[in-house]
Formats: sequence, structure tokens, C-alpha cells
Amino acid sequence: MKVVADLCIVPMGVGPSVSPYVKEIKAIIDASPLQAEMHANGTNIEGELSEICALIEACEARLSEVGVQRVFFTMAFSSRRDKAQTMADKLKAVL
Amino acid sequence: MKVVADLCIVPMGVGPSVSPYVKEIKAIIDASPLQAEMHANGTNIEGELSEICALIEACEARLSEVGVQRVFFTMAFSSRRDKAQTMADKLKAVL
Amino acid sequence: MKVVADLCIVPMGVGPSVSPYVKEIKAIIDASPLQAEMHANGTNIEGELSEICALIEACEARLSEVGVQRVFFTMAFSSRRDKAQTMADKLKAVL
Amino acid sequence: MKVVADLCIVPMGVGPSVSPYVKEIKAIIDASPLQAEMHANGTNIEGELSEICALIEACEARLSEVGVQRVFFTMAFSSRRDKAQTMADKLKAVL
Repeated sequence: MKVVADLCIVPMGVGPSVSPYVKEIKAIIDASPLQAEMHANGTNIEGELSEICALIEACEARLSEVGVQRVFFTMAFSSRRDKAQTMADKLKAVL
Repeated sequence: MKVVADLCIVPMGVGPSVSPYVKEIKAIIDASPLQAEMHANGTNIEGELSEICALIEACEARLSEVGVQRVFFTMAFSSRRDKAQTMADKLKAVL
Repeated sequence: MKVVADLCIVPMGVGPSVSPYVKEIKAIIDASPLQAEMHANGTNIEGELSEICALIEACEARLSEVGVQRVFFTMAFSSRRDKAQTMADKLKAVL
Repeated sequence: MKVVADLCIVPMGVGPSVSPYVKEIKAIIDASPLQAEMHANGTNIEGELSEICALIEACEARLSEVGVQRVFFTMAFSSRRDKAQTMADKLKAVL
């Protein structure tokens, strides 16, 4: 199932500043073949849901390596069968 | 990655009443082996992230069969490595 | 605007166990006149959006008193004009 | 309570294409004095939680005027007391 997702990863038990951990997450997302765009509250990612979930698991594993024992995630995503729509299409349609 | 997730599935382009579609989703979740509990705004589900994503794809496929062309999903979930924690454990810890 | 909301409050910079903080939040929500029901991943609350936001601010203020400097919140909520619908109505319509 | 929020508004009962309705929402957000940035899955907004909630109510009222009887909203937001942080600061800290 192809989706356009908005992913937010919140390291728990560390911080309050979490930017070192977000940088680790960004490096993993940037290295993935998936189309992704970071914004102030998360990262928009396009791809198969299973690919995005594998990416999430890689991020969680990396956070565990750097000492984060608990992680909270939110993901909003939409699927569409009436027509294909990329992140860029979604923005173009309303700008 | 084992998670405790809060899943909300919003059929778009149908309604405003969506209960017939939520019943279809509930039937698929109830038939799955995953521990799940419906609440007023979604369903809490325990399991491997990949299992939950497969369940989401099954729900979306069923919605497409009954005419829903677009679906919006939200999923909040947490992973924990310091100790195992079920849905019941989470509630017991605060009640 | 009357809404049925699903609120999740994640204390950051403390933990990984956050149940002591969730108990503080639960005490504030229980003391409020709003209809609320805690579940494994958050709390469902019915009321005017402005009332729920005031409750959120009270929770954040209390967390700050007990040492939490940063809080992450997620809130999913729906409004409806075609008919009034409580949390109980939403569940009855699909069980 | 000053927050940095990620707001997503999903018109229900219309569509599947919702871009005409998202344009209405964008016009209201653009006309507001709050700092806001639309992205592919929602809009990041900085401000007092009460101001953002008032903006949400204005968007819902407008959607009702153009025939949307039911609206689903998701909002993720964070508050911080250890230091002030804008949307731009959050991005700068990880880019």
C-alpha cells in the first residue's frame, strides 16, 4: 500500500533537548531511497507502508544504540485508489 | 519491533456517517490474532509493527471493496527496551 | 466547537518510566467536569475544544511543577454538525 | 501556553478529492497573524494554544459554510519551558 506519511519520532527518557537524537534519525532517513522531507514537527515520507515501517525500525534500533530505551512515534498517512498522488502533487493542488 | 499502538482509520469521500465502514474494519481487527481493544476514537493494538501494518493494509483493501477510494490513518505507538509492557500493564501502572 | 478528542501527553526529558507523571495528569483530568475515559494509549475527552485546551494547559502546568520541562502532545478530534454524538454513541454505532 | 503545532484537517463526507476545502482552510490560516507553514501532510503553526484552537474553530466554521458536516483533526504539539524555540529553531538544530 503506497502512502504519503507524516512521521514524528520522540525519544523518551532523554532530553529535554533531543536534537542529537533527531540528527541520528535524519541520517538514517536521508540514507534511505524513500522520498522524504523534514519539516519543523516531523518528516513527510512517500513509499510503501512496509518500507516506511522498516525505516522506523531502523531509526528505533539506532536510537537504542545511542542510549534511548523508549520511543514514542506518531504517524499520519493516507492511501488513495482514485488516482496516484505524490507529496508534491498534494501541495501543488492547494498552493 | 513490538509496539503498543493507537490506530484510527478515517474513510474519506463517504459519510458523514462512517459506522458501516468502521464495522468492516472492526471485523477484520477482531478476526486477527493480535490483542486489540476498540475505544471511542480508535483501536489500541499490541504486536509487531509489521503485523499491525499488515492488518492496516487488510483494512484498507476491505474498505476499497466497499467503495472507499481514499483513507486517512493516524497511528501513535511506542516501543520500549527497558522492560516489556502490555496495554494492560500501561493502564495498571496509572490506575 | 464541541468535539470528541483522543489526547495523549508524553513527558519528555524524564523516564523512561513516566507513570508517576501520567498519574498527575489523570488526577487533573478526573477532577475536571469533562466526560473522560482513559485507555492504554491516552484519554478520550468530550467537550468544547476551548475547555479541553484549558485542561491541557493545566496538565502542562502541573508537569512543570513536578520537574517536566518539555511535553509532547497529540490530539485527534472530530466535530460533527449533522447530528450530536457522544463517545458512548460512537462506540454503540459500531459494537 | 506557547506551542509549535502540526495541524492536519480532514474534511469527511466529501471528496475523495478535498483540495477545494484545503484551499479554504489555507486562506483562513494565511489571513491569521500566526506564523504558519503548510507542508504535504498539514500545516505547522506557532502560537498560544488558545489562538491555534480559535483558528481551528474558524476553519471548521468555514468548512461548514461550504457544506462539510463532519471534520477530523489531528494536532501534534510540544511545549517547552527550558528555552524558547520557534519552528525555525527546531529545524536549524537538526539540519
